Amino acid sequence: MSFRDPASAEAAFYAAFGALDVEMMRGVWMDSPEVSCIHPGGGLLQGTAEVLRSWTEVFRDSQPPRITHRLLQSSSDQKLVVHTVEEMVNSGSGQRDVTILATNIYVHVDDGWRMLAHHASLPLVERRQPPLH
Amino acid sequence: MSFRDPASAEAAFYAAFGALDVEMMRGVWMDSPEVSCIHPGGGLLQGTAEVLRSWTEVFRDSQPPRITHRLLQSSSDQKLVVHTVEEMVNSGSGQRDVTILATNIYVHVDDGWRMLAHHASLPLVERRQPPLH
Repeated sequence: MSFRDPASAEAAFYAAFGALDVEMMRGVWMDSPEVSCIHPGGGLLQGTAEVLRSWTEVFRDSQPPRITHRLLQSSSDQKLVVHTVEEMVNSGSGQRDVTILATNIYVHVDDGWRMLAHHASLPLVERRQPPLH
Repeated sequence: MSFRDPASAEAAFYAAFGALDVEMMRGVWMDSPEVSCIHPGGGLLQGTAEVLRSWTEVFRDSQPPRITHRLLQSSSDQKLVVHTVEEMVNSGSGQRDVTILATNIYVHVDDGWRMLAHHASLPLVERRQPPLH
């Protein structure tokens, strides 16, 4: 099962994350060695199996977080769509929201849209400070 | 002036970075409000003017770094190309190499290829540790 548009795939991605549901997450991703995922502060994970193993680790022993996401930028081609997204993640029990920036890339496969890549990072420095690079 | 392919635009991007050359960097990017840049630990910068201001800040008072880059993954469509790149940056004077992961996105404009987006982050955790998300 694929998704009728990238926004639907994105909604399912964040729903799977919020529900800590690995099988739902598996349904979001393309099944391919070309898939890649970079978690905040993480290295490059490549291939669907490795990416899903990482989500299994993230979800293990976690409480379902509250997650909202906001699309900040979108660029589309015929078979590739790039979304820049702000994620607000709250792990519950009095925690503060953590803001994460993600570049999400969707690909059109035979029957619809799937996630091809997810690159997430934590904005740590103030906007007006010079960044490391 | 644009570039004949995304690899040439990418080579010019890292050459501009290595030379701390803002005008060369300007020539790499598409001139558009759709342009975006996330430096390691940084927030979202949008639009060519804001992105180039940030590079001006990065380059100010810096010593030209030694930078090598390695393409880890590439996905292509007609007008969008996504590169996952490992950057090795050495700021000189006995510093160690810093490894940065970047998602670089190139767009085909009228006469060639330009950079549309750059999302960079520092891999801080060991590969086998469960990531934050």
